[in-house]
Amino acid sequence: MTDATRPLVRHLTEEELLARIFPLLPMGPATLLGPGDDAAVVAAPDGRFVVTTDVLVEDRHFRRRWSAGDDVGARAATANLADVAAMGARPTSLVVSLVVPGDLPVDWVTGLARGLADVCGPVGAGVVGGDLSGGDAVVVAVTAHGDLEGREPVTRSGARPGDVLAYAGHRGLSAAGLALLDAGLVGPEDATSADPGADDVSGGVGACVAGYLRPEAPLAAGPEAARSGTTAMLDVSDGLLRDAGRLARASGVGVDIERDALAGDVDRLLPAARALGVGREAALAWALTGGEDHGLLAAFPSDVVLPEGFRRVGRVLPGPAGVTVDGQEPAVRGGWDHFAG
Amino acid sequence: MTDATRPLVRHLTEEELLARIFPLLPMGPATLLGPGDDAAVVAAPDGRFVVTTDVLVEDRHFRRRWSAGDDVGARAATANLADVAAMGARPTSLVVSLVVPGDLPVDWVTGLARGLADVCGPVGAGVVGGDLSGGDAVVVAVTAHGDLEGREPVTRSGARPGDVLAYAGHRGLSAAGLALLDAGLVGPEDATSADPGADDVSGGVGACVAGYLRPEAPLAAGPEAARSGTTAMLDVSDGLLRDAGRLARASGVGVDIERDALAGDVDRLLPAARALGVGREAALAWALTGGEDHGLLAAFPSDVVLPEGFRRVGRVLPGPAGVTVDGQEPAVRGGWDHFAG
Repeated sequence: MTDATRPLVRHLTEEELLARIFPLLPMGPATLLGPGDDAAVVAAPDGRFVVTTDVLVEDRHFRRRWSAGDDVGARAATANLADVAAMGARPTSLVVSLVVPGDLPVDWVTGLARGLADVCGPVGAGVVGGDLSGGDAVVVAVTAHGDLEGREPVTRSGARPGDVLAYAGHRGLSAAGLALLDAGLVGPEDATSADPGADDVSGGVGACVAGYLRPEAPLAAGPEAARSGTTAMLDVSDGLLRDAGRLARASGVGVDIERDALAGDVDRLLPAARALGVGREAALAWALTGGEDHGLLAAFPSDVVLPEGFRRVGRVLPGPAGVTVDGQEPAVRGGWDHFAG
Repeated sequence: MTDATRPLVRHLTEEELLARIFPLLPMGPATLLGPGDDAAVVAAPDGRFVVTTDVLVEDRHFRRRWSAGDDVGARAATANLADVAAMGARPTSLVVSLVVPGDLPVDWVTGLARGLADVCGPVGAGVVGGDLSGGDAVVVAVTAHGDLEGREPVTRSGARPGDVLAYAGHRGLSAAGLALLDAGLVGPEDATSADPGADDVSGGVGACVAGYLRPEAPLAAGPEAARSGTTAMLDVSDGLLRDAGRLARASGVGVDIERDALAGDVDRLLPAARALGVGREAALAWALTGGEDHGLLAAFPSDVVLPEGFRRVGRVLPGPAGVTVDGQEPAVRGGWDHFAG
C-alpha cells in the first residue's frame, strides 16, 4: 500500500476506528464483560485487585521513526504488567486511553492494538476497554490490573538486613539500544531477538535495539517470587541504582550491589559499547543506571532458594538507607527520570 | 503570588511533584494499599470490579484559559465516575496518568488533584495511584473502578419495547456554557452553581458556565436505578440523541424522545440562548445534542416507580433500532464526537 492510499485516523470516525481495534484485543479468562459498554467487568476472585497506571508520550518515551505502533503497544503493556508482577500479582486486564493525531496512519493504531495483544494474550490478560481522543502527539496511557491469588501484596518496604538481593530480567539493553539508535548506528530494522543466546557481536547489538523497542519483562517471576517468600520487590523501570534506592528508603535498609554479579550483563552490552566507541565502564553504567528494562528487583531471606528467573545481584544491609556498589558510593549516578526534559 | 515567583513543573523533580500531590488525594474505604508502591490494592467485595477509562486533552476537551486545574480534575473524575455509575456500580477508586508541560504552574497540578478529590471524596472513591510525564499539552487520563455490590452489571442492551425511557441529570448546560465562553460573552469567573434553583437570567447563564467547567453527574442515581430494575443504562456524554441511538442499537429497539419532557431543560437554557441572540430551537438543540453533561439515560419497565433523580423523557418502541423525537426523524443531528477535529 502506498502512502497516498494509506488511510489516516482523520478519515475515520471514532466508532469506525474502534470497530477496527476491538477484534484485535484479547479477552482473557477474567473478563466478565469486555469493551463496548460504559465500563467493563473483571473478575477479582480473592475480593481484591491490584491496579497501576503508566503513560507513554511520543518524543519523550518513544519516537515514531523508531517505534512502530506494535512496538509502542507491546512496550506500554509490558511497563504496566511489570508493575502488576512486582506486587506479586498475576495480570488480569488492562484498559487504554489513546491520544492520536489525525494524520496518524490507521495501521499504526491497529498495530498498537496488536502489540498490546502480543504481550497480554500469552499471560491471560484481557484488554477490556479504552478511550480515544485526537491530539497533537501520540499518548498511550495504560491501566493494568492483577490478581493476588489470596497472597499479601509485595511492597517495597519489607526488605530486612541479611536478605539476598536478586534480579530477574535483562539489565541495560534498553539504554544501550536507545544509545545505538540515537547515534544513528543502527535502525529499528536491526532489532533481533533479545534472547540471551544471541550473544555474537551483531546479535548483541540487535538484542539491545530489540530490548529498547520491545523490552521483555519477567512477568511470571513476580508471582513466583511472592510464593517463594520475597520480602520486598519492585519493577526496575528507572535504573537499578535508582530503583534499589527506592527499595532501600522504603525498607529503611542499606543495599549493596555486587559488581561481579553484573559481569554477564556487561558482557552482553559490550558489542553495543564497542559500536559506540566506548568501553566496559560505559557498559557497566548502562547495567547500573539504564531504565526501561522492566526487570524485577526483589529481596529474599538468605535461606530461600531463588525462584526461577532470579539471580543474586547483592545483599541487604542495616541502615542508613542507601545504595552502594561493592561497598562504595556508586561511581555513576542518575537513572531515568520520566519527568525531566 | 506573582507569576515570576509562581513555581513551574520544570522546577521540580517527578518525586517532588508527587510529594505535593499525594497528600491532597482521598483514600476511600475500599483502598487497601494506596499510592507509593508499584501498584495499589483495592477491595472488590463481590469478587468483581467495574473499570472504565476516559481521557481529557488540552485544547480538545478543555482550554486552560477557561478551565483551572481543579475544574479539569473535577471534570475528569466526573466523566469516569459517571461511566461507573452507568453500569449500576458504586465508585471505589481511580488512577490518573497525567502529562504536563514543563511551563505549567505547580499550583495548576495541585489544583487538579484537589478537583479530583472534590468529586471522589464525597462518594467514597480513593485516588489510589498515578503516573506523571512531561509533554507539550496537558493530558489527563483517568481510569475508574466500581463495585456492583452483588448486582448484575447494567448494560446498554437490555431495553425492551414498552419500557419507559428516563434521564437523571442536567441537559445542555455544558454545550450552552461552552458556546457562551466561545463567544466571549462570559468568562470562567461568571460560573455560578449549576443548582436548578438559580433560574434567573444571570443565574441561568452562570449555571451553564458552571455546567461546562464542572459538570455534575448524578452518581448515586446509577446504583439506585440498578436496584429499581432498570433494563439498560448509559452515561450521556456525547448528546442525548447520539447516546440514545447507542442504547437503541445495542438493545435492538426504537427510542422515542418526548420533546415536552425537555421543556424544563429548554427553559433553563433560554437565558444562554438569548445572550447569544438565538432562540428556543437552539436551546432545544443543546438539550438534544449537547455533550458532556454526564447524566444517565436509563430504560425501566413501565410499572416501575422511577427512582429519585430520574424523570421520564420518552419510551422504548419495537425496532428497527433508531431514535425519533415525538415520532419524527430528529430535526437536529449530531452530537459530540470526541475524536473529530
